[in-house]
Amino acid sequence: MKFCSQCGALVERRVPDGEDRERWVCPSCGTIHYENPRMVVGCIVEEQGRILLCKRAIEPRHGYWTVPAGFLELGESTVQGAIRETLEEAGANVEVISPYAHFDIPHIGQAYIFYRARLRSPEISAGPESLEVKLVTADEIPWGELAFPVVRVALELHRDDVARGGYRMHNGIVTRDAAGKYVLLEHMAAPLVG
Amino acid sequence: MKFCSQCGALVERRVPDGEDRERWVCPSCGTIHYENPRMVVGCIVEEQGRILLCKRAIEPRHGYWTVPAGFLELGESTVQGAIRETLEEAGANVEVISPYAHFDIPHIGQAYIFYRARLRSPEISAGPESLEVKLVTADEIPWGELAFPVVRVALELHRDDVARGGYRMHNGIVTRDAAGKYVLLEHMAAPLVG
Repeated sequence: MKFCSQCGALVERRVPDGEDRERWVCPSCGTIHYENPRMVVGCIVEEQGRILLCKRAIEPRHGYWTVPAGFLELGESTVQGAIRETLEEAGANVEVISPYAHFDIPHIGQAYIFYRARLRSPEISAGPESLEVKLVTADEIPWGELAFPVVRVALELHRDDVARGGYRMHNGIVTRDAAGKYVLLEHMAAPLVG
Repeated sequence: MKFCSQCGALVERRVPDGEDRERWVCPSCGTIHYENPRMVVGCIVEEQGRILLCKRAIEPRHGYWTVPAGFLELGESTVQGAIRETLEEAGANVEVISPYAHFDIPHIGQAYIFYRARLRSPEISAGPESLEVKLVTADEIPWGELAFPVVRVALELHRDDVARGGYRMHNGIVTRDAAGKYVLLEHMAAPLVG
C-alpha cells in the first residue's frame, strides 16, 4: 500500500493513537487502513467413497490438484461461497452436509474453511480455472501433486476420519516448522454426532 | 474507495476481464482491488456456570453488553485473536476449550467465530474499550441490552446447550428477516463429543 484510497495522499506506517501496532495511516485525511486476514471457502465433495478434485489451470500452482475452493466474496455466506466455487471450478451442483474444518494460515493471512458436500446431480466438468476434474478414492489422491499444504492436511484428516468410521470437526493452524515442512498445529478435533 | 492504493490514480467500478462481478479497478496500473469479508473472533468464557460479559466503552453500541470479541489481525490465528481480545477487553487470561460457532453476517461482510474458553486465573478487569466486566448466569444476562444480534444468537444457543446437557458446534447466517428482526438462518448444529 502506497496511497490513501480515500484521498490519494501518500500513506505512512505508524501506530495510531490508542492502538498497539503499526498500520497504514493517511497523514492527510487521517484514515487508518486496516488489513485483515481473508477467508478461503471450499467443499470436500463426497460421492460413493470418492472425493472431487480439480487440476488447476491458473497460477499459483498451475497443474496441481486441489479441492474446489476460493476467496469468500462480500455479500455471501461461507456455505454459499463454497457452493459457488464448487460450481465454478468443477461444474458441480452440490449441497453442503456439514462444516468440516477451519484452518488458520497466519503467515499468509488466510483462513481456509471447508464443508463436506454431496452432488445434487452427477455432472462434473472443468471450469475455466480447471484443466481437469475427477472423482478419486483416498488411494487414488495424487498426494505428491496437491496444490497447497492446507489441502493435503484436510484430505489426510478426511481419509483418517473415513477410516475411523466417523467425521470430526477440525480446527488448527497450518504453518511451517523449523525444517520448512508444513504442519498442523494446535489441532482440535471433536466427533460430530448427528 | 476512490484512489488506487498502488499508484494513486482514480479507480473505477467495472467487471475485470474473466470475472463475473464488479470490482474497484485502477485504469492506470491495472490493479484489481478485491474486497473480502472480515472475521471477528471472540470467546464465550465459562466460569462455574457463569459467562463473562463486557459493557462497551466505545461505539458502536456504547453502553451495551457483549462477549469479548474483535477483528482478527494479520499474522494471528482465530484462537490467538480470540484470546487477545479477551485479555484486551476483559483483562481475562483464558485458554480455549473448543470451537463453538461460526456465524456469517453477509449484509455487513463479517463472519463471527466464537470459541468456548475458561479462565486461567480468576482476575477480570475492564480494559480501555470496556466500562465494566462481569460474570453472569444465563438468567442474569441483560438480554435486552446486548450490543449485537449475533451475540444474542450465540448466547441463546449456549444457554440452550447448557440446558440440554451438551455443547454443539453451530454454523449459520445471521441476517434480517422481512420484518427487520435479526434471525439465524441455515442453522447447522452437531453435538461435540470428546
